[in-house]
Formats: sequence, C-alpha cells, structure tokens
Amino acid sequence: LFENKRTKFRTDFFELHPFDQGRFFSDLDPDDRRKVYEYLTPVELSDAFDELEDEPIEIAEFLDEMQPRYAARLLSAMFADNEADILGVVHADKLEELLNYMNPVDSSRVRQLLKYKDETAGALMTTEFISVSSGMTVGLAMAQVKREAQQAETISYIYVTKEDQKLDGVISVKDLIVNSDDTLIESFMNSNVISVNVNEDQEEIAEQIRDYNFVALPVVNDNEQIKGIVTVDDIIDVIDEESAEDYSKLAGINTEETTNNPWIAVRNRLPWLIILLFLGMLSAALISHFEGVLSKVSVLAIFISLITGTAGNAGTQSLAVAIRRIATSDEEHALWKLILNEIVTGLLIGALTGTTVFLIVLIWQKNLVLGSVVGLAMAGAIFVANLAGSLIPIGMEKIGVDPAVASGPFISTLSDLTSILIYFNIASLCLKMFGFGG
Amino acid sequence: LFENKRTKFRTDFFELHPFDQGRFFSDLDPDDRRKVYEYLTPVELSDAFDELEDEPIEIAEFLDEMQPRYAARLLSAMFADNEADILGVVHADKLEELLNYMNPVDSSRVRQLLKYKDETAGALMTTEFISVSSGMTVGLAMAQVKREAQQAETISYIYVTKEDQKLDGVISVKDLIVNSDDTLIESFMNSNVISVNVNEDQEEIAEQIRDYNFVALPVVNDNEQIKGIVTVDDIIDVIDEESAEDYSKLAGINTEETTNNPWIAVRNRLPWLIILLFLGMLSAALISHFEGVLSKVSVLAIFISLITGTAGNAGTQSLAVAIRRIATSDEEHALWKLILNEIVTGLLIGALTGTTVFLIVLIWQKNLVLGSVVGLAMAGAIFVANLAGSLIPIGMEKIGVDPAVASGPFISTLSDLTSILIYFNIASLCLKMFGFGG
Repeated sequence: LFENKRTKFRTDFFELHPFDQGRFFSDLDPDDRRKVYEYLTPVELSDAFDELEDEPIEIAEFLDEMQPRYAARLLSAMFADNEADILGVVHADKLEELLNYMNPVDSSRVRQLLKYKDETAGALMTTEFISVSSGMTVGLAMAQVKREAQQAETISYIYVTKEDQKLDGVISVKDLIVNSDDTLIESFMNSNVISVNVNEDQEEIAEQIRDYNFVALPVVNDNEQIKGIVTVDDIIDVIDEESAEDYSKLAGINTEETTNNPWIAVRNRLPWLIILLFLGMLSAALISHFEGVLSKVSVLAIFISLITGTAGNAGTQSLAVAIRRIATSDEEHALWKLILNEIVTGLLIGALTGTTVFLIVLIWQKNLVLGSVVGLAMAGAIFVANLAGSLIPIGMEKIGVDPAVASGPFISTLSDLTSILIYFNIASLCLKMFGFGG
Repeated sequence: LFENKRTKFRTDFFELHPFDQGRFFSDLDPDDRRKVYEYLTPVELSDAFDELEDEPIEIAEFLDEMQPRYAARLLSAMFADNEADILGVVHADKLEELLNYMNPVDSSRVRQLLKYKDETAGALMTTEFISVSSGMTVGLAMAQVKREAQQAETISYIYVTKEDQKLDGVISVKDLIVNSDDTLIESFMNSNVISVNVNEDQEEIAEQIRDYNFVALPVVNDNEQIKGIVTVDDIIDVIDEESAEDYSKLAGINTEETTNNPWIAVRNRLPWLIILLFLGMLSAALISHFEGVLSKVSVLAIFISLITGTAGNAGTQSLAVAIRRIATSDEEHALWKLILNEIVTGLLIGALTGTTVFLIVLIWQKNLVLGSVVGLAMAGAIFVANLAGSLIPIGMEKIGVDPAVASGPFISTLSDLTSILIYFNIASLCLKMFGFGG
C-alpha cells in the first residue's frame, strides 16, 4: 500500500511543471515534506527547488529537515546561481557540512560564486553554459551541445572561446541548425560579443538585456575569461525587485509587506512615520514662532495646509521625475539639464498656481493683501519644493547614496517646513508694511 | 566616390547590433535618413526597425519619408507584432495604401492582428513561430526548423499541432537536438502546454512568463488553435510599462515625461496640481468655518499641518500597500483580509502616534487639554487616512476603475480634509467642555 502511494505520488508530481511542483511543495506541512524527501531522489526534487519563490532564508530551513547528504545532492543538482543564493544565507557550520558532502568540483564552484558581491553579475550568473572553440566544425559543436544540453540553463546561445576560456565570439543554436556539419564555427560566429564584467551592477545588466532583447548575457572576469551567464528569467526578477523598491521608497514603506499580522505591519510602517512626525514637529515649532502674527491675523491659519499640501504635491512630482531620470539616464550633463529644466518648470507652475490662488482668495475673502500674501507664498513654496524634489535626489546620487531614499513623504514633510517659513515671512512683512485691512 | 561612401556605410552599419543600428538611425536628421533609404534595401533596414525604441507614432513618421513600396516591404520584413504596432497608429488612407503594396498573405495577417484589443495577448503576439505535427520524426522536424529558423522570432520552443492548427503539445529545441532522428515527436512532446487566450490581459501573461520562466508562450483562440506567440522581450517591456504606470500614479504625474521643454512639463503636471488645489480649497474653507475656535485658541493653528501631514503619510503608506496587493493577488477574500488588517493596523499606528504627539505637546506647551486634543485628533486622522488608503483603491477595483488612479497626492489631499474635520470638531468640543487653560 505504502509502495502504491509512493508510485501514485511520483506520477502525479512529475506531471506538474517544476514551478507548480515548487508551489505544491512549499505549501506542504513539515510531515508531508518529510514524505516527499522519502518518495523523491534529491535530483528529482531539484527542479522544483530551482523554481521555488520563497526567500532563500526560508528555503534554507527546508534543508535543515533533510539528511545533509540528501541536501548536498539536491543543491548540486540545482542551477549554480540558485544553489549559491541559498548557501549564501545558511550558517557557516552548516555550509561547511553541506560542501563536504559535495564533490570537490561542485563545492569549489559554489565557493567561487559565494565570493561575489550581492547585486552584481557574479552573484546573479549561473555556470551552466555551453562553450565551444572557434576551430570546431558545426558537426563537432552539435555533438557537444547534445551531450551538455540537459545540464545547460539555456542553449539559445553557445559561446566561443579561445585558449584560457577567453571569450571570442557567440553563435546561436539557430546557426548550428542552419549551417552544414562541416562548416567551421569561426566562419559564421559573431565576434562582436556583448558581455558584462562579474562586478557589473545588476541594474546595468537589466538594461543591456532589455535593450538588446537577449535571452542570456555572458559574464567575464577582468581577463575576459567567461565565468558564467545571466539569463533573462533572473533579470525579470531584478526588474521587479528594482521597481518595487522605487515604488516603496516613494510611498515611504516597504510595499512588499505581505504580512497579515498587524503588529508586523506596524513595525514596518511606524518608524518612518515617527521620523516624519519629528520633522513635522519642526514645522509646528516654526508656526509657533510666528504665533504673534497668527493671533493678530487668525485668517492666515486657513491657508497653511493649502500651501503646504500643494507645495508637497509639486515636490513629489518633481521627485518622481528626477528619480526615474536618474535610473534611466547615464549622462552627467542630462542631470544638469534636468535641474535647469526644473527651475523653469517650478517658476512657471509656481506663477500659474500662485495667480490662481491669489484670484480665489481675493474673490473669497475680498482682501487684496491676504490674496497677495497667499499667492506669493504659494508661488515661492512651489518653486522651492519643486527644486528640492530634483536637487535632493541628484545630490544624493552624487555623494553615492541611493537617491530613492529621499522618499515622497520625506520631500513633502521637508517642503512643509520651507513653505511655512516662506508663508509667515511674507505675511509678517506685509503686516508691517500694509496691515491686513478687510 | 558616391558608390564608395555607400559601401563604407553598409559595412559599418552591418557591424552594429540591430539595437544600435536602430539607435543610430533614429538619431539621424531627415536628410541623412533619406540617404539610408537609398543605401539599404527595406529588408536590410527592417532589423533596425524591429529594435527601435521610439513610440509607434514616431516610427510611423519615418514611413512617410519613404516610397510607399519601400515602406510596405520594410514592414513586411519586420516581426508581425512590431509591424502591427506601427500600422495601428497610421492614418486609415495611408494604412490601405501600405497594405495594397504588400502581398495578400502579409496584408491579411496584419489586418487580423490589428483587430485585437490593446494590451491583450493578441495585440502583443507575433506570428513568426514554428509548428510541427506530432506524427513527425525528429529528423523531419529538424529539417523544417532548418527551413524556418531565420524567419522565426525564437526557436527555443517548437509547437506541436493536430489537424486545424489545434495546439497539442510543445517541444524544445533541446529535445530535437538530444533525440535521435527517427524518434517520433509525440513520444517525448510535453502535452501539458501552458497557453494563453488571444483576449488575455497582458499583465496576466507577464505573470505566467515570470512564474514559469518561459522564453515564449503560445497564444490560442477560443478553439484552441495556435495563432501566435508572446516572447519574453515583449513581456519585459510590459513589466516596465506597468511598473512605470503604478509609480506615476503614486506621484500624481506621468514620470515617463522625458521632455526638456518646461512648457510641456508644465502642461503635464499643472492640471493635476490645480485639481488638488481645489480639493485643498475645501480644507481651507473648512478651517475658515472654524475661525471662531481658531481666533479664541490660536495655538491650535500650530498643529494643523502636523496632523494633516502625518495622516497623509500614513494614508500614502496604506495606499501603496493596497495597490501592490491588488496588483499581485487574485483572491477576493485576500482583499477583505487586507481591509480588516488595515483597520487594526490603523488603530495601532493611530494610538501609538497619538500618544507620542500627546506627550510631546504636553511637555512643550504644558497644556493637558491641548495635548489631548492634538493627540486624539492625530489618532483619529491617522485611522481614517489609513482606512481610506486601502478602501478607496479596493472600491475602485470593485467598480472596475484602475485603482492606481487614486494617487498618493489625491489620498493625502483628501485626508487633509478629514483630518481638519476631526481636529476642529474635537477642539470645539473640548473648548466647550473644558476651555483651554494654560
């Protein structure tokens, strides 16, 4: 009976796509998972593990449930990039234990991959690519592809190397199929290969793959030796990650929060709110500094939140534009152009919005001085917020800080401060010069 | 001499990757572009056009510079999805003219593609795929792949069809290479093909390709007949587009604005700012309604922007979380869970922030009543903003409006309104009950 369940399980399991196998596996409870380790060999389970969407730290916990030998074999059968992601988060002792169960080639390959810094080509690449030499014929190359195809992550591109694994060219599997068996590889290979360095940042790689529509990109070390390939599926994850990050920063929150535990949500959001609250307290202190003016002209209070709110909105707009520009442009002078552009845009938007507000307040409150104060303050506050929205992220980029840290809420809270300063200074001045007659 | 320049140009041009050819071409001025049309045949230029990153409407303008026959040949040589994107934006007369210069097979294929709704699988797919029948041997299939490889957009997957082009299975080019020539396709094909319907939304397709790490996905009509394939490079563009859209909405601006003309930037941003300004005017009117309270207790004005700002920040956080959840979850009940979760989270964050503010105001202003009013108002305002931040996008999703339209600035300006209402009502009540003694 037990044997039967095993057979049934294996049949059903192998009918699933590895991604679905992975999803099925990670939904199991620990006891059922232990049965899976019994029913499947480590190599059979490895495809599912290659597709798991859980965080590496969660996958590492599955490894603790297995015999170390089973875990080591499973890891060896996975693609090297996924294997390294998981081993990158296991405890040092456990890492050594697992590596000891692997054959020396596998373990030294993993050790090598673990050395690369996070978010670089080296950390992202896998080592399962096919390379041939330029002197080979199509027939010989095809025979090699046949032997290595099952292990390779992709056979769309086959890399051509000279002595010492130096990258010399690239051919596609199309070329192999279309050309006759005795053609020499060098006669049709593309020697204009686009490659990335192992230390290249993952965002740069994403841009290359997106621009050139590659399915994979070769990764070389400083001596132009090919060390691995980065495939498009990993790049899709990078693109997702980066855009989620930008989005989160604009909202002042980690939006990938998927918890249903309100306490965790609170822990995620509160620190940022409290920091902004203290920044907001500065605004309050500033208004309190002008309490003398306020008590004389209490009507001023009506427009505080209108001015701070509108300037904050304008600042958020220019911040978002600046962050997208920084992310997509690599030309230095383009950023100076952006600043210049924001100055003019800020002046125009400030002037137009200021005039609108001036007219509304004039008609509503029938007070020319009040209208002028609110209109001028609005124009000034928008101009400053607009400029800050682009200057701050560009300045951060220049000093090497991730510009997205200057989040939307941060810019609007900061612009509250300058808006209030501008508003009450203009109001005090007008109070001294003209008074606020009706 | 002229002949020489032509040869030199052709040599240099063909050394570039098509993406770089495209970038080079679109940077030329009109006179130089006209020379390119002379130097290159339409088929030679078509690879560059396949890679152009300009908007279809801009590419369509290039077509106007060419002889119609040249343009028609160029279009025919492009991948069908790119061809249809461009023809989708040309004027009806021009479209008919161009289609008349094409051979009937090409033009009817384009007409078919043009019928699909924007942002569906049909609009995204290309028709250049390879299909074989299940009864073929590997050798026969390979011969067919050899013939069709140059035209196909990808040969990574070869689709297996039965009578009437009904999708029956899929094999990879790996399978063809690894299996011996006389093996039957049906003996190893995967008949568990994952496909999408022509009317499927592009976001759903992106999710499938991302999850299953496919390089391409077959598109079928309602009769399960294969009509085309969607390739991963088009999906990367979709992912980029969708995330840029979400980001833009959160900032209340089209962040893909790449203009260096301030007037265009102003036209892009001002309408949204003015709408929010009028919403902000409601806040001002509301405060003005409470001017009586304000003139008695002018110290209240100090905390207006602190409360509206902090509530706005909390609302933006919950909005961003809700929008990401809606985008990534397809379970109905998960959204109700989210609302419930936000209620508890809002209560907790409101209580904690309210207490903090209460203590700060108490120590600073040495006024228990004032501290309580500000603290309570802060707690209430945060709770409401937090709830609105998730309820509004979920509500919009329910009535079929894109939830991302409820942008960050919209939520914060709306929460200004409710925050002021809460603040002054609590203040009025306390004024009546206790007065605001020092």
